[in-house]
Parts: sequence; structure tokens; C-alpha cells
Amino acid sequence: MSHSIGDIAAAIGAEAVGNTALQVDGAAEPAEARSTDIAIAITAGFLASLDQGNARAALVPAGTDWQGLGLEAAIIAPRGRLAMSGLTRLLDPGPDLPDTCHDTAVIEAGALISDTVGVGAFSYIGAGARIGPGTRIGHHVSVAAGVEIGADCHIHDGVRIGRGCRIGAGSVLHPNVVIGADGFSFVTEAPARVEAARDALGQLDLPDEAPEQDWRKIHSLGGVEIGADVEIGAGSTIDAGTIRATRIGQGTKIDNLVQVGHNVIVGRNCLLCAQSGVAGSARIGDRTVLGGKAGVADNVTIGADVVLGGGSVALSNVPAGRIMLGYPAMRIESHIESYRALRRLPRILDRLRNEQKPVPKRAESD
Amino acid sequence: MSHSIGDIAAAIGAEAVGNTALQVDGAAEPAEARSTDIAIAITAGFLASLDQGNARAALVPAGTDWQGLGLEAAIIAPRGRLAMSGLTRLLDPGPDLPDTCHDTAVIEAGALISDTVGVGAFSYIGAGARIGPGTRIGHHVSVAAGVEIGADCHIHDGVRIGRGCRIGAGSVLHPNVVIGADGFSFVTEAPARVEAARDALGQLDLPDEAPEQDWRKIHSLGGVEIGADVEIGAGSTIDAGTIRATRIGQGTKIDNLVQVGHNVIVGRNCLLCAQSGVAGSARIGDRTVLGGKAGVADNVTIGADVVLGGGSVALSNVPAGRIMLGYPAMRIESHIESYRALRRLPRILDRLRNEQKPVPKRAESD
Amino acid sequence: MSHSIGDIAAAIGAEAVGNTALQVDGAAEPAEARSTDIAIAITAGFLASLDQGNARAALVPAGTDWQGLGLEAAIIAPRGRLAMSGLTRLLDPGPDLPDTCHDTAVIEAGALISDTVGVGAFSYIGAGARIGPGTRIGHHVSVAAGVEIGADCHIHDGVRIGRGCRIGAGSVLHPNVVIGADGFSFVTEAPARVEAARDALGQLDLPDEAPEQDWRKIHSLGGVEIGADVEIGAGSTIDAGTIRATRIGQGTKIDNLVQVGHNVIVGRNCLLCAQSGVAGSARIGDRTVLGGKAGVADNVTIGADVVLGGGSVALSNVPAGRIMLGYPAMRIESHIESYRALRRLPRILDRLRNEQKPVPKRAESD
Repeated sequence: MSHSIGDIAAAIGAEAVGNTALQVDGAAEPAEARSTDIAIAITAGFLASLDQGNARAALVPAGTDWQGLGLEAAIIAPRGRLAMSGLTRLLDPGPDLPDTCHDTAVIEAGALISDTVGVGAFSYIGAGARIGPGTRIGHHVSVAAGVEIGADCHIHDGVRIGRGCRIGAGSVLHPNVVIGADGFSFVTEAPARVEAARDALGQLDLPDEAPEQDWRKIHSLGGVEIGADVEIGAGSTIDAGTIRATRIGQGTKIDNLVQVGHNVIVGRNCLLCAQSGVAGSARIGDRTVLGGKAGVADNVTIGADVVLGGGSVALSNVPAGRIMLGYPAMRIESHIESYRALRRLPRILDRLRNEQKPVPKRAESD
Repeated sequence: MSHSIGDIAAAIGAEAVGNTALQVDGAAEPAEARSTDIAIAITAGFLASLDQGNARAALVPAGTDWQGLGLEAAIIAPRGRLAMSGLTRLLDPGPDLPDTCHDTAVIEAGALISDTVGVGAFSYIGAGARIGPGTRIGHHVSVAAGVEIGADCHIHDGVRIGRGCRIGAGSVLHPNVVIGADGFSFVTEAPARVEAARDALGQLDLPDEAPEQDWRKIHSLGGVEIGADVEIGAGSTIDAGTIRATRIGQGTKIDNLVQVGHNVIVGRNCLLCAQSGVAGSARIGDRTVLGGKAGVADNVTIGADVVLGGGSVALSNVPAGRIMLGYPAMRIESHIESYRALRRLPRILDRLRNEQKPVPKRAESD
Repeated sequence: MSHSIGDIAAAIGAEAVGNTALQVDGAAEPAEARSTDIAIAITAGFLASLDQGNARAALVPAGTDWQGLGLEAAIIAPRGRLAMSGLTRLLDPGPDLPDTCHDTAVIEAGALISDTVGVGAFSYIGAGARIGPGTRIGHHVSVAAGVEIGADCHIHDGVRIGRGCRIGAGSVLHPNVVIGADGFSFVTEAPARVEAARDALGQLDLPDEAPEQDWRKIHSLGGVEIGADVEIGAGSTIDAGTIRATRIGQGTKIDNLVQVGHNVIVGRNCLLCAQSGVAGSARIGDRTVLGGKAGVADNVTIGADVVLGGGSVALSNVPAGRIMLGYPAMRIESHIESYRALRRLPRILDRLRNEQKPVPKRAESD
């Protein structure tokens, strides 16, 4: 489908300049752009590569000399990624999910499924599940008995939704997401060595060998409640709570291969980047961002508006608004200072050692 | 289903006090408890929130003034999480897994499946697989030809069990677990740069560019052997061994998104928390605990009763009984000392620099 | 099937010695070897355990006194793991994947599937997908409309391949791999706190609270292009690009539970070990190795022939040929030096403190 530059600009709420009637049928990076693509050139680097491709129009930052770059038309994007959101939404053909029920799908008696729900091949919908209008479910999905899924959700292939789970309207679950598996919660009859280790933080003189004993399971009865407009990436897992639901707040976005443990409460509009993990019973405030591979220890409370950097691990509570880095995570200013000091440290220690060698002589001469 | 406080206490082996005939039909956190819930108040924080809910009975620590808190009955739990194990087991309606064979399931000729086995919709059981009595298999599961699964296992939706694997009795595999995929084992014809890097640990002056060469696969012929009463969390992966099985010992519990590489041997009653990983050919002793996101390098031996803290990475052998933290992991005492020193370091270095500035003058004055 | 020692040696291009007509029907570690196994004894440790088993023949390093070890025959492997590759390939019965189309598979109209393609039970192949000759697809696989898969690929159970993806010939996708899910790319209308945090790296005095605002999605239109002879481990996820494809170069091997974000370009013959992650728009040069749990931040460029050690995180660009360790990753030499210094630091700081105590007195005496 083709669009004029003017129409695209209007659709994304941006300003079009030049030959706004120019038609494009796709978007591309500047160096790979055909003459019928709009080039996405929202950074200086991309602007510089416009001449390697054939674009006649581009999405450019405010203040760009688009004519000087040989373009016939441009869309001015004062906030490039925001314009990208509008542009890619316009060009997206929509989710690759069925809008009718496939013959092979199994829908158990008593499931309440609106006429406008799509269910893909080989999917299984348990008894009494309720699925809101407009929701589209892919292939090989399993939805347990009694699960509630709101309107206009996208549930991609291979997703598993366990007993006692509720998914808010407009949410997106990417392939192979698992919602509502049992929490990882075990206890030994007598205190286990690992408990003593946690209590002691190394102060205690633990015996080197512990008696053999079994782990007894604390069962997960609480399910998972996912708010509206939540997105959860491929392969991520959100465990069921013990006696109340694990909760993900409205508007929160979760990337791929993220783990959210039992009883966790994640606030609204958070970002949990790929491979981050939140251990059992931790709480994450609104708008908080966990970078890729970041970790939050169990029972820890992270305030609102916190940024925990990629690869960092919060082992204790973090007040609202903090930017944290490292292992264990500390304020970013302290981390940068300590890291710089650490890099200088070997040379400084060498110098100290050299200075100390003559010290005895000077002591003698005193 | 409803239970009296007295019956619950008896079932979990704890003491009931007050109106032990009081009936409850669920469990809840104190602030969310209805009048027919038993409140779970096993910590001081939870005890303090009892007055926010409507519980008439609660599970409380030894020594609690339960009458002073307005309760009509209580169960005394000297070890709260142990009591939670008993209580949640009592209230658990049982696994959400089929107890009969669904019409759509494909069971190949020669598979030996007891009458008491359940197999869910769209599951595939390969030729010659043997599945013990009482085992319940979910939807969309695939079990390769010849696999052996013991009695009373729970194999959840989307689990994949590859050729040459054996699963011990009473084990639980959560959704989308993959057992017995190929190990990650490749070799180049001539030594690859990464091998030289490992050998040299940076001492060698490696050329910046390496010749192009392909990775040849070392095939995985050894399968996986999982002991009895093992639990493996959603999305976790246990790779096949090369010429003998990768082994997980009896009673070991593995959380979500955990990776266990080829040839690894994990002992009995270990805990491997979420997103931890054990690289190829490593060995983990009995009762050892890997915290969330912890890593163990390939070919490393970790003794029994080790605790490797969350986010820590063991790059070399660890003797039995050690508590380890950090990257690379060191004894917890050393880690805490070093971490404190690191935080003080920037100020100390600044002070040293200030003290050194006058040194030249003093040298002149000497 | 049984092979003579001479035939095995010929097949793997190695030298056989002793009774080369001796027949074996399997391979084993020395301590577990039956008399009809060839023992794999390519290290000193394994050689030492030969007498615990019953092997009459072994694969041994060059220079081994195989007769002195009581063997009747041996294959001499100057490069043991390379010989292992040949030997395990010879003994591998081939992939456990169907070579015909199962009755239950759904293949939509217009899918072009060669006669020699196998498709397993309950798999779904979308309209217009093209699948090359010799490719074998497992059970419960879903392939979106229009996807292209080359010849001789192995697509294991539960794999999901999304719209706009191409898989090169000879590639192997292990169970539950997800190719082409949406990238994790969101933007707020006004700049979000996390953007300010990144720009400022902690220098800026950010307000502790941020205004509530929604995350808008940047849609993923670009798909994924996977080169020939790529292998991707169980549960790994490769996200679709925004306006061009995310790309994995020919010959690259990816382990289990690895995340590759949108727009990433990975070069040829790389190794990405288990649980490593590459954030959006990063680039990885040819033959680069990411150790287990290693991470690469978004928009970072890693040169060719880099080794990023296990558990290390590259937060900024890395020139070609570097060996890097730590968080943030630094050259291995610096990391080892700093790590050693860090371990000595507490003692040194204590000494400094003791030395400084008399300083005031000396100042007085000056």
C-alpha cells in the first residue's frame, strides 16, 4: 500500500515539507532505501548515509537541510523515535494472528468466547475460560480452565496461561510466554544451610557439611493478574503467587526471557528489559526501568522511577528516583567513581609499595 | 471446600488455639483476608497488617498474642514457611493436568503407557516411550521415541523431552521445559582464537584477526538422566550429554529459565534459582544452592553445601561448604570487605593524592 | 551398529594403531566403558581412569603409551575435540525429526514444500511459506505465512518462526526457539526519565518523580535473516528488526536461552554462549565469542575476533581482537590486575589507616 508524504506526516502528527504528494510504499534505513521508500534518518549517522541509497524522501530531525541532502520531500521529526512509533504503526499490516477459530482448536464446554475472537490451529481453551471481544489467539496456545483474558489482546503461538490467571485488555503475550507456573518456593523441615548463610551473611561459622533433607514445596494458589496494555516478550515467565496473585501493573512492558517470581508486584508503566529477573515477593514501583540482565533479589522493594542499569543486581531496597549500577547495585555516581578508582588501583598500589620500601631507612634516619 | 482450624492444624502438624472449630475456606495475606480466610501472618510485618483485613483466624509465629490481635483462633507455626508448605498443600486442588488421554493426542505404536496416565490435547508420545502409572502429561507436549518417564510425574504444557532421556518418578516439569536438546559443543579444525585466549588468560600477544574457519559440531549422543522428585521450572533447558548422560540428582529443584549444559552433573537436593546457568561438564555437589542469575563456568567443580549468591559467577573450583559472592565469585567475607573498600576507595585515593602533593616540597626540604 | 577401529580412524582422518580390526559399537567415558565401547580418553584425567572401565580401545592424545595402559587398539588424536567431532558424527543416528508429513500437520494453501521435507505432528505451515528440500520440521512448530526456510534445515519441536523471516540452508533451530517476535522498542511522548538518566549518566539532578505517561510501541516491520549453517539453542529468541531485518551471519552458533534484540547484526562464525544477550541495534563482528551470560548493550559495536568472557557486560564499543572481562567489561589484563588489587585492598586500607594515625603527631613535631 502506498502513502503520500503529506498523509504520513498528518497521520503521525508531524510536519511535511517539499513535494508532499510524493508516494512511498515502505520505510528503510537510508543506505538500503529504494526510491519508493521513506528513509528513516533520525540521527546524524543515518543522515550521512542518505547518499548511499535511493530515497527521495526521509524522516529527518528538526533543522535538517533536507534540500541540501538531495531530498524531494521530508517529514520533520523533532522527537525521532516518537515519529518512528507513528510511522511504523501506519505501515504495520497488523498482527499475524487468526481472526477466526481454526477447525483444529479445542474449546472446552463453558468457555465464553466472543464471536470476534480468533483462535489458531491446535490451541486449547479450558472449560469456563472467558475471552473478551477482539482478542486474537495464535497456534499451539493453551489457556487453563477459568482463565480470564480481556478484550483486544494478542496471545501469540505457544503461550501457556495457567489456572487462576487474568490478563487485562489490550495486552500482548509473545510466543512461548508462560504465565502462572508454580512459584519456586521450597522449605526444609529443619533450617537449611542456605538459610543460615543468609542470616549470617558469612559471620557465622557454618559446618562444611549439612544433613541430607528434602525440599518440601510451598504450593502456588494465587495465580497471576496482568493489567491492561501490558506486553510480555517471547519466552518470559511470570510465576503464580502463593496465596495472592503475582501482579503486573497496567502499561508495563516486559522484554524476552524475563523472569518474574511468585508474589512479585510490578507497578505501572515499567520497562523490564531482556533477561532481567525479579525474585519472589519483590516489589517494583511505577515507571521503574530494569536494564537488560538486571536482577532484583527476593523480598526487596524498589521505588518508583528507579533505573537499574543493565547487568546490575539490587540486593537491598532502593528508594524512589535512584539510578543504580553494579553488583551489588549502588548509585550511579558512586559506581562510576569506584570503577574509575578500581582501574587506577593497580598502579596506585604499585606506587605505594615503592614508596614504602625506603620508609624503614627514613625511619632509621629520623 | 471448608476446613476447621483444628483440622488444618492437625493436617500440618501444628498446634491450634482458640475456637478450633472455626471453619475457613481459603488462605490470604492479612490485609486481603475475608472473614472465611485463614490469614497467613508468619512475620511481624504481616501480623501488623491483620487489622486491615477481616480474618478471624491466622497462622502466626510462636509467642504471638493472638487474642490481643482480635483473632478467634490461631495456628501456631514455630517454623512459618514449613507450616505454609503443609497449609498450601492442603488447599491445593491438585495439578491442572489431564488424568485421561485426550482424543487428539498422538501415541505412537509401542509406547507403553499405564491406564492411569493422562495425556493432554495435541500431545505426541513417540514409539517405545515408557510412561509410569499416575503420570499426568499436559497439552502440546512432545516425548521422543524411547524416552522413559517414571510414575507420578507432572509434565506440563509444551514440554519437550528428547531422545535418550529418562525422568525419575515424582518429578515435575513446568511449561515449555526442554530436556535433551543438543549440547553446545563445537570445534574448529585449527585452534581457534578463543582457545588461545583461554589458555593465555591474556598473557599471550594474540593477533587481532583470526583466519576464517567453520565450527564443527561435536554431536550429543548421551541424553539426560533426571532423578526422582526433581522439579524443573518453566522454560528451563537441560542439554544432552556428549557420550554419557547429563545428570540431575534426586530431589534437586530448578527454577525458571535455568540452563544446564551438556555433561553437567548436579547432585541431590540442590536448588538452582531462576536464570542461573551451569556450563558444560561442570559438577555441582549435593545440597548446593545457586542464587538467581548465578553462573558456573564449564569444567568447574563446585563442592557440596556451597551457596553461590545471586548474580555471582564461579570461574574456578569451589570447595565444599563455601559461601561465595561476586564476579569472579570469592568467599562472602572477602567480597563484603572488598566491596566496602571499593566504596571508600575514591575518597581514599583523593586523600592520598592531596597528601602526595606536598611531598616534593618536603623532599626539597629534606 | 558396529565399526572397526580402523574404519573409525579412517572416517575421522586419524591414525589407528594396534588391533585395528577390533569392533566397537559405542563410545563412553573411560570409567563407564564396556568392552565393546571405544573409550574417549583425550585428557590426562580420562587416561588415568581407563583402568576403572572395560575398554579395549580408546581415542587418546598423541604420544600416549596405549599399550602400557593395557589397550588392544587406539586411535591417535593430535587434536582431541576435533576427533570427537568426527567420532560423534559417525555414531550419531541422525536427528530425531520426521522425514515425512504427519497427517495432523496443517499446511496452508500456497505453501511450497519439497517432497523431501518432513513435517511433524500438529505443526502449522502458513500460506506461501517456502521450505527447501531435505528440511525436517518437528512437532508443534509454527511457521508464519511467507517465511522462507532453506534446504536441509532441522527445525525442532515448538519452534516459532514469525512473519518476514528467512532461515539459511543447513541451519538448526532447537526446541522452543522463537524467531521474529516484536522488538522491545517503546517511546514516550515527552522524554522519559530513563532517557535523561542515560544522557546524564548521573550528572544531572533528576527529579525523584516522573509524570505518568504511556509507552508507545515502535512496530517491528523488518523480520529476521538467518544465514546458512547457523545453529540456535533451545528457548533462544531473535527479535524482528524495525525497518530492516535483524541478521545472524553464516556459520554462527547460538546456545540456549540467548536473546538477540531487534536490528542486531551478528557476523559470521560467532559463538554466543548460553544466556548471553545482545541488546537492540548492537553489532557483533565475525568470529566473536560471547561467553555464557555475557551481555552487549544496545547500539554498541563489538569488533571481529573479540572474546567477551562469561558473565561480562560490554557497555561501550570494543575494538577488534580484544579479550574482555568484567562489569563493565575491560581488557582482561586490566581486569585481572584490578581484581587482584581489589582483593588486597582491605588489608592495604587498614595499613594506610594505621600509618596515618601517627601523622598528626609528626605534623606537630614539624
